[in-house]
Amino acid sequence: MESERVLIFDTTLRDGEQCPGASLNLKEKLEIARQLALLKVDVIEAGFPAASPGDFDSVRGIAQEVKGVTVAGLARALEKDIEANARALEKAESPRIHVFLSTSKTHREHMVQKAKEEIIHMAVKGVTCARKYCDDVEFSPMDASRTEPDFLVEVVRAVIDAGAKTVNIPDTVGYTIPGEFAGLIRHLKENVPGIERAILSVHCHNDLGLAVANSLAAVQAGARQVECTINGIGERAGNAAMEEIVMALRTRKDFFGLDTRVDPRHIMACSKLVSTLTGFFVQRNKAIVGKNAFAHESGIHQHGFLKRKDTFEIMNPKDVGLDDSDLVLGKHSGRNALSHKCRELGYDLTQEELDRVFQEFKILADEKKDLYEDDIITLIQKQRWTEDKLNIYKLVKVQCRFETGSLPEGTVVLLSRDGQEHTARGTGDGPVDSLYNAVDKITGLSCKLLDYQVMSKTRGKDAQGEVTVRVLHENREVLGKGAGVNTLEASCHAYVNAINKLLIKPKTGPVSGAEVPGP
Amino acid sequence: MESERVLIFDTTLRDGEQCPGASLNLKEKLEIARQLALLKVDVIEAGFPAASPGDFDSVRGIAQEVKGVTVAGLARALEKDIEANARALEKAESPRIHVFLSTSKTHREHMVQKAKEEIIHMAVKGVTCARKYCDDVEFSPMDASRTEPDFLVEVVRAVIDAGAKTVNIPDTVGYTIPGEFAGLIRHLKENVPGIERAILSVHCHNDLGLAVANSLAAVQAGARQVECTINGIGERAGNAAMEEIVMALRTRKDFFGLDTRVDPRHIMACSKLVSTLTGFFVQRNKAIVGKNAFAHESGIHQHGFLKRKDTFEIMNPKDVGLDDSDLVLGKHSGRNALSHKCRELGYDLTQEELDRVFQEFKILADEKKDLYEDDIITLIQKQRWTEDKLNIYKLVKVQCRFETGSLPEGTVVLLSRDGQEHTARGTGDGPVDSLYNAVDKITGLSCKLLDYQVMSKTRGKDAQGEVTVRVLHENREVLGKGAGVNTLEASCHAYVNAINKLLIKPKTGPVSGAEVPGP
Repeated sequence: MESERVLIFDTTLRDGEQCPGASLNLKEKLEIARQLALLKVDVIEAGFPAASPGDFDSVRGIAQEVKGVTVAGLARALEKDIEANARALEKAESPRIHVFLSTSKTHREHMVQKAKEEIIHMAVKGVTCARKYCDDVEFSPMDASRTEPDFLVEVVRAVIDAGAKTVNIPDTVGYTIPGEFAGLIRHLKENVPGIERAILSVHCHNDLGLAVANSLAAVQAGARQVECTINGIGERAGNAAMEEIVMALRTRKDFFGLDTRVDPRHIMACSKLVSTLTGFFVQRNKAIVGKNAFAHESGIHQHGFLKRKDTFEIMNPKDVGLDDSDLVLGKHSGRNALSHKCRELGYDLTQEELDRVFQEFKILADEKKDLYEDDIITLIQKQRWTEDKLNIYKLVKVQCRFETGSLPEGTVVLLSRDGQEHTARGTGDGPVDSLYNAVDKITGLSCKLLDYQVMSKTRGKDAQGEVTVRVLHENREVLGKGAGVNTLEASCHAYVNAINKLLIKPKTGPVSGAEVPGP
Repeated sequence: MESERVLIFDTTLRDGEQCPGASLNLKEKLEIARQLALLKVDVIEAGFPAASPGDFDSVRGIAQEVKGVTVAGLARALEKDIEANARALEKAESPRIHVFLSTSKTHREHMVQKAKEEIIHMAVKGVTCARKYCDDVEFSPMDASRTEPDFLVEVVRAVIDAGAKTVNIPDTVGYTIPGEFAGLIRHLKENVPGIERAILSVHCHNDLGLAVANSLAAVQAGARQVECTINGIGERAGNAAMEEIVMALRTRKDFFGLDTRVDPRHIMACSKLVSTLTGFFVQRNKAIVGKNAFAHESGIHQHGFLKRKDTFEIMNPKDVGLDDSDLVLGKHSGRNALSHKCRELGYDLTQEELDRVFQEFKILADEKKDLYEDDIITLIQKQRWTEDKLNIYKLVKVQCRFETGSLPEGTVVLLSRDGQEHTARGTGDGPVDSLYNAVDKITGLSCKLLDYQVMSKTRGKDAQGEVTVRVLHENREVLGKGAGVNTLEASCHAYVNAINKLLIKPKTGPVSGAEVPGP
């Protein structure tokens, strides 16, 4: 049987990045976009250019640097949004403008306050405007799954006539059920004249835990593009998880008879990168990419497993890039081996960056006997968190002492960009608290710690710990990261990293007054 | 429309507990079982009595103490397993024996090495034997979704004739797709004579991210029991998440026309308890119980949200027990208020336990201005982790100092059960490492640290951190927990907690040679 292709539209950098606590800067977005290109997704939705200058820059940067993939930007059905998209996508090899507009009754009445005719008029105007700049235009009727099916038919027909090449049907609030959603897709296929001129796409949210199932049901009913995110991140309970969509289609090809272009061997690397950069950890029992997804415990399962793999395993862990023998480098490994490994992991380091990573690698290899892929990734990330040239402060020295019953004392030395060293001492309820108070004394900022997490990235008492902090200062929330064998020092690095972001990061959140959206 | 009931069969304590790294002791299992009874699930699968003495004791303990709910035990189709179940369930108000046997071709050939006729014979014999002890018998043909449908019809018919009142159809390897699975359920309903005499149940695994969708599709096709776990924990990618099943049926009652007995206001408390005790953290974007599930970020969503809740919110967070105003107690709150709050949170404390929690509560309320539900839960848990009478070692004092560039030094003082104090000093790559090395010097055990995590449970620099360690010693893996404002001290508590478990915990894992199972 000849199989058809399902297009994978990744919105990790738009819908994913948009959710509370996940904001990424341009450098981080570029890194993820490069990994997505290696993964061979069909479309990368890189952001919403009109939302903020930061978002504009991200879309422009990705359009310029990442090739071999369509780069899309999101726009409301407004000329200024579409025009911003056109500018941001100028350098894209294959640009797409994604226009959206609310269509459901509740959204029409309570969000946009427009009648049905006005909605159709705006949608057509938006698509027509976008087509002036770009051949590849996608339209999304927001909250489609709660829109009256016959009105949806009218909207879809009108935007296809206006030149939309992809029509995306979002389940914006994660409300639909697979059988119901498949019915809606069939309804459109049967009732929209000219539907064959556009690719039907779906965009499902996971509020009831059904985003993947709804997407697959829609594909069975004829949809040929799925919008999804790595690890299923996104607004509220997130979007359909790409790794689950891809592996379900692949594992059950007998059932679906469909292919994707995705190379699943890059799934694990992508998942880890997104998890690290957003600070959104993947739970152990997450399908495909969770720590336990391919682990077997109980005796009977192990027993069956040993006799024959297929008794309990429907996928090969190697297919998603998991390898038991991921022991990669040791203390005798050279610069070339490291450089090769970094490229294999999808990281494109400058000479200078590689030098610094190699230096740290040698120190770590002395401390630890064996280095694993996760060690290398942590080293690369650590280098990026601490060595940014724009940083205002650099952590030079940490000192801490405490004893049960007395107040912990911490001292930090920071180097500011003007070359001055600053020393401060703080106390607190815990050692971390004392160090952070010392940092505050130097910076003069009074930050609120929203979240503090430490995760060991590898095994053993000498494992590297990765510290993630979320810091709030005057309504801005930033993520700070640090890593190292010494978790207190790494905690300090994470806090200083957050402070630097607060001091230098351009506002990438919604510009006040703007309405940043999401199908 | 009159609505039918779907029974909720919770297997958090059996399939959930069985997955790598989640093992719970009797006390912890009882605590979860009590919460499940408050949640009003219909059946609690409490364990697999023949697997180990620890499992036997857990099933017996829960059967004895937890009322108002059916308590089930799992058994292979072997007399010794069924007899162990009967003994463990003796004191249950409403006992159920759950017998299972592999039926798929690959399992028949590579696991049990039995022909079809032998399988039917064993299944009938198992059910008949169980009925001698118990009216309420459930049968599961393991790997049913990959079993030849017509052979499955034969098996199901035979076990119903033998007296099984519930027949469970497991998707053991998480392979099926909603439409396909619904078809299998319909096939059974149409082809098994006497099917109306049994309740059809389903048990879905989440390897392709479809466990919830498959369960719901089966319910639409006529299944009236769903086997599921809190937070979806379980073997590999886990089981169907109970909170998603319950809330999907509830939110889309217009579609399903079905009810459950579950009181969803206890969902959050249950989710947090299971997450804390297993050390399986829930990811931020997890449906229903993730931190972001009810959070809104982007401007347009907030805008719509503010104008009218239903533009983006399909569930009310209060329905699952989430309350914005969960600020509960302050420094002036008394013992009664605390006791009341503990009961409300589902904890049944002894006077002695309450005394100790109150004492800690007063100290914490002095350090922090406001205490939240999570603070109270952490205090209760902390008390349980540190005050167990069986503990061999108790942490008395921690001292630590370090400075960038030199080796961290840690000193710990432990009190052993014989009343002796032991002091040791250690060094290490990081402060945690140095403290753990000091502990090892006292205990003489050489443990491998598999995992180390710190999570802040509330906000602010003075938030309590919860530390989870996984420690391996001679093939036994245990979880250690600690909590407190001082994360280094809490880290030490967690390690000592793990050591105590290693030294006293009876083996609850599979007895060597036994084949612990799972549909």
